[in-house]
Amino acid sequence: MIEEALQERAKLVDEAIPKFLPVTPPDEMYHAMRHLLNAGGKRLRPSAVLLAAEAVGGKPENVLPAAVAIELIHNFTLIHDDIMDEADLRRGMPTVHKKWGVPRAIIAGDALYSKAFEILSCTRSEPQRLVESLELVSKTCTDICEGQWMDMNFEKRKDVTEDEYMRMVEKKTAVLFATALKIGATLSCANREQSRALWNFGIKTGVGFQIYDDVIDLITPEEILGKAQGGDIIEGKRTLIVIHALSKGATIEALGKNNATRSEVSAALTALKESGSVEYAMNKAVGFVEEGKDALKELPDSEAKNLLRGLADYMIARKY
Amino acid sequence: MIEEALQERAKLVDEAIPKFLPVTPPDEMYHAMRHLLNAGGKRLRPSAVLLAAEAVGGKPENVLPAAVAIELIHNFTLIHDDIMDEADLRRGMPTVHKKWGVPRAIIAGDALYSKAFEILSCTRSEPQRLVESLELVSKTCTDICEGQWMDMNFEKRKDVTEDEYMRMVEKKTAVLFATALKIGATLSCANREQSRALWNFGIKTGVGFQIYDDVIDLITPEEILGKAQGGDIIEGKRTLIVIHALSKGATIEALGKNNATRSEVSAALTALKESGSVEYAMNKAVGFVEEGKDALKELPDSEAKNLLRGLADYMIARKY
Repeated sequence: MIEEALQERAKLVDEAIPKFLPVTPPDEMYHAMRHLLNAGGKRLRPSAVLLAAEAVGGKPENVLPAAVAIELIHNFTLIHDDIMDEADLRRGMPTVHKKWGVPRAIIAGDALYSKAFEILSCTRSEPQRLVESLELVSKTCTDICEGQWMDMNFEKRKDVTEDEYMRMVEKKTAVLFATALKIGATLSCANREQSRALWNFGIKTGVGFQIYDDVIDLITPEEILGKAQGGDIIEGKRTLIVIHALSKGATIEALGKNNATRSEVSAALTALKESGSVEYAMNKAVGFVEEGKDALKELPDSEAKNLLRGLADYMIARKY
Repeated sequence: MIEEALQERAKLVDEAIPKFLPVTPPDEMYHAMRHLLNAGGKRLRPSAVLLAAEAVGGKPENVLPAAVAIELIHNFTLIHDDIMDEADLRRGMPTVHKKWGVPRAIIAGDALYSKAFEILSCTRSEPQRLVESLELVSKTCTDICEGQWMDMNFEKRKDVTEDEYMRMVEKKTAVLFATALKIGATLSCANREQSRALWNFGIKTGVGFQIYDDVIDLITPEEILGKAQGGDIIEGKRTLIVIHALSKGATIEALGKNNATRSEVSAALTALKESGSVEYAMNKAVGFVEEGKDALKELPDSEAKNLLRGLADYMIARKY
């Protein structure tokens, strides 16, 4: 049921994207901006905007521009992240900088960023609520940058604590999901308590999702993942799994080793499983999602509220 | 007189920058964001915000956040442009990516971008006027990206027309200056005619300024410029000077030649002068600035209006 409900909302978002982001001159720039967007994806963040609106009694179609804006911001971060990570593939397709070169990928990302604000500012709502939403989204983008910067700092360190990791992942991932939910509510005339509940739901499930995502990224075979397995290991990313394993004294030879062989990556995966770190991270992810669902008790009962609970479970349900 | 008036306003902006953009964790990211900002500069764009507010009877201090936001956006474009141009120096200092590396420079730019919107959204004004300003600024950032993309496309072409150049330069440079003026007015309760007059003033003088800037960039010796002379030539930039020279059948061997020697660059400069292209561009710049000043006749007479006229002249007055 949740999958069907999400597909319905993803369809709304898919149809809205070309409407709000038409290809205009210089055409090639807009093709570059739409490259990853066209590759599909589950549209969890924009669907969260729509569901949050519904959960506070609003109409999802009224916040559709805000939903598209959130998806554009997500895609902007992917384009710039891929440049920074020198990633060749995303969703089984060449990354934007791989196809258009780094300078144009930087611009395509920047343009998605501004388009997001442009589209968001056209959402029909009370001006004061619109200003609040624009302010929150911009603050969130700053947080994402801070999280990304922290993440890069971590790669050079051996002593990153779980607390530091949690702060990083909250900024890098969770705030955008929480913002999606909060602006969906705010733009739909939610009261403060409702907006806050949805924000808390977003932060907790967002952190849980990122931890889970790191696990899946680690254990999924290349042919399903659409990119090389163990990329986080090779890049030296301090995921919760790695932080836990290091604290348990595990040896991970391939960590941060650019030229690690397949068998070294494979040995690292085994070490991370044997130290119990994969299971530890999985359990943490589930715990956060449960806390997130708890936050929803502030909202009146509704189908949308049930769907949000379903969404939270869904975020940590996929096997790969 | 105009220089003193601009210095006064630049001082207000200089003092406001650390207030609106304090260094907070991760500190190093904020140092990277402030790197070019700290290098000073004339603050023409933020001063334009303040002057526009004054010209429509508003208080400059009320639009100070908007002024800082415009300066941040300008600096964000500089950081990303320097990455794309692989420039080592700016204002005689190492560029951000030279000092912090490309990935961190991308983030520092992105963070300035979001901080700009964050700061702008905190300007005290009627919410409706704030939404209009946020929408305009975001649209302008999209225009800047389009202009930058067009500029890059031009580098591969021999047949760029003057019209195409004008459209590019309007997007890449003029709209931000026009936006600075328009939001200064809009946030200060200007009427539509006043806002439009300031926008037109900004577009015309902005185009004139860019044409003039390209000339100055071309003819200024390295020790004054703070970076290698003839950089635009080597990069193959289609400036108005180059477009005019090519249309006159001039030969510019160094154009787009990465490994051009100093004497080749010097020969290119001579060719551009002899074809009358430097003078042609200078005259065009002056013409645009005069048109811009004309647009101000819609505004009531005031000291600020006189200063805006002075600013326009000043923009094409510096010898180097």
